[in-house]
Amino acid sequence: MADSEPTGLIAKKGIELLTFGTPNGYKASILLEELKEAYGREYTWQSVNIMKNTQKEPWFTAVCPNGRIPAIVDHDRGDFAVFEGIAILSYLARHYDPDHKLSFPVDSDDYSVCEQWMGWQHGGLGPMQGQANHMFNPTPYGAQRYVGESERLYGVLDKRLGDRDFVAGPGRGWFSIADISMLGWAAMCVFSGVDIGMFPHVKAWLDRCLERPAVKRGFAVPNEASFNNGPLLEKLAKDPEARQKFDEERKYLQECKEKYGYKYSSP
Amino acid sequence: MADSEPTGLIAKKGIELLTFGTPNGYKASILLEELKEAYGREYTWQSVNIMKNTQKEPWFTAVCPNGRIPAIVDHDRGDFAVFEGIAILSYLARHYDPDHKLSFPVDSDDYSVCEQWMGWQHGGLGPMQGQANHMFNPTPYGAQRYVGESERLYGVLDKRLGDRDFVAGPGRGWFSIADISMLGWAAMCVFSGVDIGMFPHVKAWLDRCLERPAVKRGFAVPNEASFNNGPLLEKLAKDPEARQKFDEERKYLQECKEKYGYKYSSP
Repeated sequence: MADSEPTGLIAKKGIELLTFGTPNGYKASILLEELKEAYGREYTWQSVNIMKNTQKEPWFTAVCPNGRIPAIVDHDRGDFAVFEGIAILSYLARHYDPDHKLSFPVDSDDYSVCEQWMGWQHGGLGPMQGQANHMFNPTPYGAQRYVGESERLYGVLDKRLGDRDFVAGPGRGWFSIADISMLGWAAMCVFSGVDIGMFPHVKAWLDRCLERPAVKRGFAVPNEASFNNGPLLEKLAKDPEARQKFDEERKYLQECKEKYGYKYSSP
Repeated sequence: MADSEPTGLIAKKGIELLTFGTPNGYKASILLEELKEAYGREYTWQSVNIMKNTQKEPWFTAVCPNGRIPAIVDHDRGDFAVFEGIAILSYLARHYDPDHKLSFPVDSDDYSVCEQWMGWQHGGLGPMQGQANHMFNPTPYGAQRYVGESERLYGVLDKRLGDRDFVAGPGRGWFSIADISMLGWAAMCVFSGVDIGMFPHVKAWLDRCLERPAVKRGFAVPNEASFNNGPLLEKLAKDPEARQKFDEERKYLQECKEKYGYKYSSP
């Protein structure tokens, strides 16, 4: 059964998550694991293989008309369906985080700040880093454009984290859905061609977030992607052939940048 | 003084909008015009010329660390600053639309639906159509990829609008921040290479929205862009040289699509 794909919803109560091991998928599973940790709230998930286009099936597009993971169905609230990562995070926070452990009261300025940074991820970091992946941009122009735009965005985040531990919240901030929205992308930035060493505050923040048990568990739903920084760096350390290919890709990216006169600047 | 750029905030009370004549800029000015119409609420705006990189100046990045328009400052709430279109729309709705004329009570399912479609615009339609513009994607691969992805997204919206007048709200829906979030992009889709004739429900919805006086006024802040469908089609009708250039670009786009075997499908 391991290779069989879902053909419809399976749960009768609680939240049912339809996801896959991608940066956007993890944001939903991380928040659901955090809510389980904080409130003992269980959830159900199904892995929707986007390589097989299961997310284009009618039962799936009835939940998410855009045909993209992640999506959730809330069986405790009349099978209400939610798609788009930012809307999933804020829906779950509004309904299932009554003590505001992972978010903020919705009328507060802290919530707006949280929402601004979630918006920044949803409309900037996600779409641009998503294009940086060279399988989507096989041209030298595309490679340098989207890696460059991703670097600009990591520069913005690095500055934000220069004097705080987490993206939103008072003082040095606290871990919230703003951080969760970005984690999947930051956790695979090496694969995307971004040199995380350029952004020390981002690196420290990422390490800080990855220490959380619920974050670790969230990254295992449905499974940790091989393109995430941890597994990728491990593979590069052990496999000389993979290392050589990786180094060649980096060299190619550098040539693309030079060809178009790219120079890092942020914002 | 017409050519001089802003050098800082100028208002002492109310909302101050920092914007420019772009699809993302218009969403803020349209909502502010609708709130003026509904509640008599005045606002101040400044035009921030993104061709001159005024949005990278320190006074601007203090408001919006991402260095992008639009951004607002709420002088009535301690000069609180908000950036990212989706966060601006929801902030203004929460604080200045008490009767929910342009949005929905934040705990309602209608609000979540509204937020899901705002998210769809913010993370999909905006970023992808933004890349479709061929000045950003001078390669044949980029041209067909992003115009194709935009078409896929307009197909999703067209289906959504097949049995309703507006994107969110009960019954056939009502005009809300979900529509406002998308208007700037739909209003320039011809320039982006999207054939709006393929999406009759989107076209009818766009015409419906554009009839609203406040929407018209919002598109005039700071000025209507020449790339919007109205001015562009008018120019093409009057100027044979522009028409020829436009037709050549469409032919080129068609060749790009053929080169990469693009076939329309949605979602």
